[in-house]
Amino acid sequence: MTTQTLGAVLDHIETDFDNSLGRLFELLRIKSISAEPAFAGDCQSAARHIADDLTTLGLRAEVRPTGGHPAVVARSRSPQAGPRPHVLFYGHYDVQPVDPVELWHSPPFEPTVATHADGRKIIVARGAQDDKGQLMTFIEACRAWVAVAGSLPIDVTFLIEGEEEVGSRHLASFLEQYKQDLKADFTLVCDTSMWDPDTPAITTALRGLVYDEVRITAANRDLHSGLFGGAAQNPIRVLTRILGGLHDDNGRVTIPGFYDGVKDLPPDILAQWKALNLTPESFLKPIGLSIPAGETDRLLIEQVFSRPTCDINGIIGGYTAEGSKTVIPSHASAKISFRLVGGQDPDRIRAAFRAYVKERLPKDCRADFIDHTGAPAVSLDWNMKPLAAARQALTAEWGREAVLIGSGGSIPVVGDFKRILGLDSVLVGFGLDDDNIHSPNEKYDLKSFHKGIRSWARILAALAERPKA
Amino acid sequence: MTTQTLGAVLDHIETDFDNSLGRLFELLRIKSISAEPAFAGDCQSAARHIADDLTTLGLRAEVRPTGGHPAVVARSRSPQAGPRPHVLFYGHYDVQPVDPVELWHSPPFEPTVATHADGRKIIVARGAQDDKGQLMTFIEACRAWVAVAGSLPIDVTFLIEGEEEVGSRHLASFLEQYKQDLKADFTLVCDTSMWDPDTPAITTALRGLVYDEVRITAANRDLHSGLFGGAAQNPIRVLTRILGGLHDDNGRVTIPGFYDGVKDLPPDILAQWKALNLTPESFLKPIGLSIPAGETDRLLIEQVFSRPTCDINGIIGGYTAEGSKTVIPSHASAKISFRLVGGQDPDRIRAAFRAYVKERLPKDCRADFIDHTGAPAVSLDWNMKPLAAARQALTAEWGREAVLIGSGGSIPVVGDFKRILGLDSVLVGFGLDDDNIHSPNEKYDLKSFHKGIRSWARILAALAERPKA
Repeated sequence: MTTQTLGAVLDHIETDFDNSLGRLFELLRIKSISAEPAFAGDCQSAARHIADDLTTLGLRAEVRPTGGHPAVVARSRSPQAGPRPHVLFYGHYDVQPVDPVELWHSPPFEPTVATHADGRKIIVARGAQDDKGQLMTFIEACRAWVAVAGSLPIDVTFLIEGEEEVGSRHLASFLEQYKQDLKADFTLVCDTSMWDPDTPAITTALRGLVYDEVRITAANRDLHSGLFGGAAQNPIRVLTRILGGLHDDNGRVTIPGFYDGVKDLPPDILAQWKALNLTPESFLKPIGLSIPAGETDRLLIEQVFSRPTCDINGIIGGYTAEGSKTVIPSHASAKISFRLVGGQDPDRIRAAFRAYVKERLPKDCRADFIDHTGAPAVSLDWNMKPLAAARQALTAEWGREAVLIGSGGSIPVVGDFKRILGLDSVLVGFGLDDDNIHSPNEKYDLKSFHKGIRSWARILAALAERPKA
Repeated sequence: MTTQTLGAVLDHIETDFDNSLGRLFELLRIKSISAEPAFAGDCQSAARHIADDLTTLGLRAEVRPTGGHPAVVARSRSPQAGPRPHVLFYGHYDVQPVDPVELWHSPPFEPTVATHADGRKIIVARGAQDDKGQLMTFIEACRAWVAVAGSLPIDVTFLIEGEEEVGSRHLASFLEQYKQDLKADFTLVCDTSMWDPDTPAITTALRGLVYDEVRITAANRDLHSGLFGGAAQNPIRVLTRILGGLHDDNGRVTIPGFYDGVKDLPPDILAQWKALNLTPESFLKPIGLSIPAGETDRLLIEQVFSRPTCDINGIIGGYTAEGSKTVIPSHASAKISFRLVGGQDPDRIRAAFRAYVKERLPKDCRADFIDHTGAPAVSLDWNMKPLAAARQALTAEWGREAVLIGSGGSIPVVGDFKRILGLDSVLVGFGLDDDNIHSPNEKYDLKSFHKGIRSWARILAALAERPKA
């Protein structure tokens, strides 16, 4: 491996970039919406398309069935023993539904390069970023290496799944089943964001998630508020009273034991984060807000990366159509989620929440619960060697120090890689906050795609020069 | 007017009862849901149907437009001067929506006579009681009088409106417009309940109503709770916190000034009400509850008849379909109503509620309000003469002393009759607490319908024998 080879690879990326974009467009045209059964055939097509593409890189690629949409597994034909590392690259070919489709400025499955209001060139399509655009940055980097050097500089196994947008519901059992085939030294994941359009980032902490639903039942039927109002318990009153008490005046969650296992940041990381200077002006103003809503004694960046939260994601009860109806409903319900950090135990958090509700319930009301999901937080080792390699490569490409950040969101598969395969993950991605993922007019900056490919080419080189993790 | 004529009228009611039921069923089949625009044509049909029916009683009946659904006005062709009274009878042909329709045991607009678990025969349909069944008791009584005596024993003007279930929003202006046509000595209203299945009642106090809607807006769009959770304000959190504080631990409403103008009952009325012995066992157990939810230092009967209340009638925000979605919604809203008593001023209550919300609003959130309706409480004169006539007639029919009670519900039109037409109202009705009005499986006891017709036949006779109020 020489600097010269990497230089040639980067040159090749430049000359071949229009073709890279064309290949991304081909993938974006496939309507691989995993949530909607009508598109199951398109998910099959997307998997087939990627497997065929990876075969052209000299890999042995297969479309493998799962309990749902298939996954693509592709491996180097003859992984080499010795010091060069073997990585498992993870991405997903499935995309979110496109509704409300009438808000799209161009058809979601007809990718196009448009010009953003501020002059940036952007790729617009469902999946342009999440995750087709992102996973293609890695594939195109590999393609350039193979074109220039005849083979990849390290061993790579690809795992591209098709159910990330519906909770990766068959992935854990798939990992169990193909444990042997998926052996590697660590994983690379391309499904995260940059710090800002100029600053590359590696995500090293992911919040966990507990999602619960509560339904309060009072009377055995809907009542007229004139006849019964005052005497009959109102489940919306009970529900709002309970949920309204979940935070204290300082934004802290009031559930007993909620903060068990939550640790303060190490001083050096806190200092690093402080230096990033995340302000309400930059973070909240674009969404129409100005006052951080979390714990008042925490930095804004802590509130979104390293502090646990409680959010009510949905609530419904009684009459909700236009106009008025003087009803006291029989029941009311809400969906509540908690983002977890550090050592918070999802099962204990769920149990504590349910106990909190039950303790506040009038004796003649009932609470029923639905467990939607639960996953612990993931913290990656900031000192793992591949992370240093990635950091160095990103810094070289972007001309600005790559930062190590947390992510407010959850990527449950990262926990599965650790638990089932014993692998740590390096999360590098080129998304931006304004990419509209999961929303109409999803986009990926052309610069993200271009420099994303170049970044991975550099990371592959850096990893090849290092001993295994 | 002789006792003999009344006897013949009551006999006629017996022989014609199956036809009375058939005519009620015809009216019940018309889907006159006033709240839903799709049923505007059905409201027209119901008005037309009633006008045609009243014409057969020798009345001059017209369907008159309002700003919304039309009203029926029908009058004696030649009101007589002299001692016999002229009454304005009020009822409404519109009904509540039927949702959730899947909980009905039979289609809501296919009336049927069923047998209640305890053996009572019941008429089941939307509107069976409220108010089609009730208003038809009066019309059928009039029909029997006309059949036997050739004409009504007193002069009657009918006013049957089609917007009671949506707040009678055009009725006040209608009363102003047709003031001359609606002249009478007092009004009769059939939209209230018995004390219990064996004890007839006249309602002399009605709670007022303020109905408001609040919508809290936080961010300018829906957000991903992973990316923004903790930092972005959640409008459901804001809404539940505000609404959850509307009652204190003793069930009192916490809005400043809410109890201004509320008076304690005179000791004699309180003693009478105490004697009625309304217990949680009798009042709450049938609806599956056991603990009165109102002010802890008040009798249950005060909680429903003479104390003001605050109820949340509907709430919605965020993701409410099956499953889970990690969204922080942009907005959330709730419908809140207040039952008023005594001298509470609707405008001041509404203003106090809105001020309460705004004071608790984070600075970067917005609250918008919709005024749905407002009407003060009404207290009727317990000594008015027609009331004594009605009481005597009811006592004769039911073999048990008719009681004078309050009503938890609001009939804003009663206040309008006083304010605009200068008329007091006598409220007699045959509803029962378990009629499921505004709920699935609305019913009217066959006995209520039958003895209701007979009661009105007697009341008409009793009024004919009395001088004007």
